Amino acid sequence: MSAVLALMLISLDATELPAAAATSPETVAAQLRDAAMAGHTTAWSWVSELTTRFGPRPAGSANEQQAAAWAAARLKALGFENVHIESFPITAWVRGSESAQLIAPSVQPLVIAALGESPPTPSSGLEGDVVIFPTLTDLKAAPPASLHGKIAMVSQRMVRAQDGAGYGAAVPARTDGPKEAAERGAIAFLLRSVGTDSHRLAHTGTTRYVDGRVPVPAFALSSPDADQIERSAALGQTVRVRLFSTASYVPNAHSQNVIAEVRGRERPQEVVLLGAHLDSWDQGTGAIDDGAGTAIVTAAGKLIRDLPRRPRRTVRVVLFGAEEVAQPTPPGGTFGGHSYATNHQAELAQHVLAGESDLGTDRIYSFALPVATAPGEFAKTVLRILTPIGVLASEHPPEDVGADVGPVVEAGVPALQLTQDAMHYFDIHHTADDTLDKVDRAQLDQNVAAWAALVWLAADSDVDFRPRARSGAANTAAKP
Amino acid sequence: MSAVLALMLISLDATELPAAAATSPETVAAQLRDAAMAGHTTAWSWVSELTTRFGPRPAGSANEQQAAAWAAARLKALGFENVHIESFPITAWVRGSESAQLIAPSVQPLVIAALGESPPTPSSGLEGDVVIFPTLTDLKAAPPASLHGKIAMVSQRMVRAQDGAGYGAAVPARTDGPKEAAERGAIAFLLRSVGTDSHRLAHTGTTRYVDGRVPVPAFALSSPDADQIERSAALGQTVRVRLFSTASYVPNAHSQNVIAEVRGRERPQEVVLLGAHLDSWDQGTGAIDDGAGTAIVTAAGKLIRDLPRRPRRTVRVVLFGAEEVAQPTPPGGTFGGHSYATNHQAELAQHVLAGESDLGTDRIYSFALPVATAPGEFAKTVLRILTPIGVLASEHPPEDVGADVGPVVEAGVPALQLTQDAMHYFDIHHTADDTLDKVDRAQLDQNVAAWAALVWLAADSDVDFRPRARSGAANTAAKP
Repeated sequence: MSAVLALMLISLDATELPAAAATSPETVAAQLRDAAMAGHTTAWSWVSELTTRFGPRPAGSANEQQAAAWAAARLKALGFENVHIESFPITAWVRGSESAQLIAPSVQPLVIAALGESPPTPSSGLEGDVVIFPTLTDLKAAPPASLHGKIAMVSQRMVRAQDGAGYGAAVPARTDGPKEAAERGAIAFLLRSVGTDSHRLAHTGTTRYVDGRVPVPAFALSSPDADQIERSAALGQTVRVRLFSTASYVPNAHSQNVIAEVRGRERPQEVVLLGAHLDSWDQGTGAIDDGAGTAIVTAAGKLIRDLPRRPRRTVRVVLFGAEEVAQPTPPGGTFGGHSYATNHQAELAQHVLAGESDLGTDRIYSFALPVATAPGEFAKTVLRILTPIGVLASEHPPEDVGADVGPVVEAGVPALQLTQDAMHYFDIHHTADDTLDKVDRAQLDQNVAAWAALVWLAADSDVDFRPRARSGAANTAAKP
Repeated sequence: MSAVLALMLISLDATELPAAAATSPETVAAQLRDAAMAGHTTAWSWVSELTTRFGPRPAGSANEQQAAAWAAARLKALGFENVHIESFPITAWVRGSESAQLIAPSVQPLVIAALGESPPTPSSGLEGDVVIFPTLTDLKAAPPASLHGKIAMVSQRMVRAQDGAGYGAAVPARTDGPKEAAERGAIAFLLRSVGTDSHRLAHTGTTRYVDGRVPVPAFALSSPDADQIERSAALGQTVRVRLFSTASYVPNAHSQNVIAEVRGRERPQEVVLLGAHLDSWDQGTGAIDDGAGTAIVTAAGKLIRDLPRRPRRTVRVVLFGAEEVAQPTPPGGTFGGHSYATNHQAELAQHVLAGESDLGTDRIYSFALPVATAPGEFAKTVLRILTPIGVLASEHPPEDVGADVGPVVEAGVPALQLTQDAMHYFDIHHTADDTLDKVDRAQLDQNVAAWAALVWLAADSDVDFRPRARSGAANTAAKP
């Protein structure tokens, strides 16, 4: 065994790779894939340590900042280059204490979670009769002032779907419900959690600002609590609820993106961007959302970094901050994503591809490439590499690739999508249940395998993924 | 169709039964079984209304009292006889507010639940470094005073087992842990929840009094929180925890048993007792523990009550109060169970059999009869009736039949056991997750079917189930 080979074996966690000098990119991709599938990547130890050491990492919190410092140090230790932190200002939101009770027809505790950035209740709490709307559309149909002094509740159920499509259908009730309720005189807004489970854990998430604030205190109910209110009302009883929250804002907080690279050997200015977010909601420890994503992109980058030969282009790993507090109105988007797009505006024309891992830890079952390359040789190579680990070629181009890379994709950077099985993701998403025990190690490794292989192929190629392709390049195979 | 038959069809929810005048007890048992399996018994509406109208029903609470009044009224409306409420005094326990945080190595919220009857912390909370013991045995091995100022934690995991055997193995850490911790100087006790799930919901339950009180504040941690503390410690870090509880006691409270009968046609003084408990823990709505049990025994009694011919003996349904606050030291046992045994002491010699439904709503898979009758014709009849709905004859006599009928069984009343599949019961048991959505209607009906058929057979027989059997009777078939 040569010294070079021995070194490589160590750096790849004892997974066998032959010397790569004469190896084709496709062969290297297969080796990366197989090394990740063999397990013992850096992914598990990353997500375990991150979530254990820092627990919840809400945007702008000390925990998020400490986690970012730890991540930067760990990325350096793993051998990444140009590791640095880019800070940006945010207004942080702090949940504080919160509670809710049914106070009529009988006294019962309710499990709630304030929606992100919801204002507090008065310090003595607030009380009101509940008016139930089956959908947001029904709430919108309520006449002006018809909810004066009431608590509006939308009881719509999220649909379980493999690609997570039920989320998009359910979220408008969360983002727009407080505004619609307030406009009709309601003093608070309640929402059946946007989630697919039936546990006494409420799913938080952002809601929409109106003139710079969420207009009324807004809460998610756990699904069994929403059921209970619906059944109480169905017994012909007036349902009265008491709500309490000490939520608050920290105007001069900051968050940060952590950036690390594997520099390209030929065209280092060309960047394949691979993102995930380091912040999390405050109730769980952000294991599946998105500690696992940061682990997956880091482990994929590490496998590429440890190859005997670097890829032609630069692989840039970005661990975004403040993703969860995305506001859909201006300044809009995610804070970390916007900060990156602003700071790196001059480089974006040389960003050849951007992808993001932010849908938990279940297996990837589908990939989608930019339209320019979807039918070409590059896509065929990807399919050959990913089919053995259960990944289909999507019939659709990348859609809604992720909140963090959203701003750079909007700025014209081609998007890459690896779609995970989301059948169970929304059982856990944005709840206190988002903890390490929910991470399946074998599926985590499959994610690393797919990202490492695909990012390697893109970074070691000269393929132009942009719509205005160089002549013929879009449908040309990657030629190393 | 005769008028009698028409009436019967209505009373059995449109399930077809032929006129029973000339029908054998075994045939009637099969009809009862099939009527219950066809669904639409009173069980679902009972458990749905009980849990919706009153929510949690902690022993001694207004909710428990209101639920008892409702239950008595509903039992009368269903046609039961001698419906009445028997009150008894208890010291009630009120959870109040509670919270916990990891404060070192980083600040993280912890999900806890005070164990039943735990004293409050000081009003400013308490803090201490955590000392982890893998088992109660390890805690017992710690030297005197070795835990001075510390918080003792037992991290033992409960084993999942179909017959619920893992519970008995895990519970001593809950009952005896606070005492053992206090004796070694600990200021508080933490326990990995006695449960089989991995959700951020802690399992409460009683702990043992020492000299009339629980010696130190005692809390269950959710399983992921126990994991988090174990992992933090494994990183070589001192784990410091802050605990807060405003738990309190109500010394002059009362609870109550609700009693209802189907009077026997020949020997009404002979009683087959069928119990469940109406109180519940305070975090959930007591759907599986034990709203469902009260629904099952009520629905089984109702099916027997609606037969054209009453059984020879009396079927007595008892919905016990204050089961959850059982104390294993004197005065001991369950408050409701002891109250019943005391109030009805003079009748106990004529109690021919006692059984209890208190293991959730999953299917019954095994039955056990008193030793005197286990090998006889009565058992063979039961087996013929219950085999078609998936029930085995147990190889063991009844064991640990239930906390409520415990005192009468201890006083010599023969015990009857229908064992439910408990593989999933302890995922939910004693948590906020014990809500109606966890009740499986088809399995609920199977429980009603088994109880109705078996109780009918016992009540319509002249079998003596006592160890000192009348000559030959123990092994004699029931002769209607």
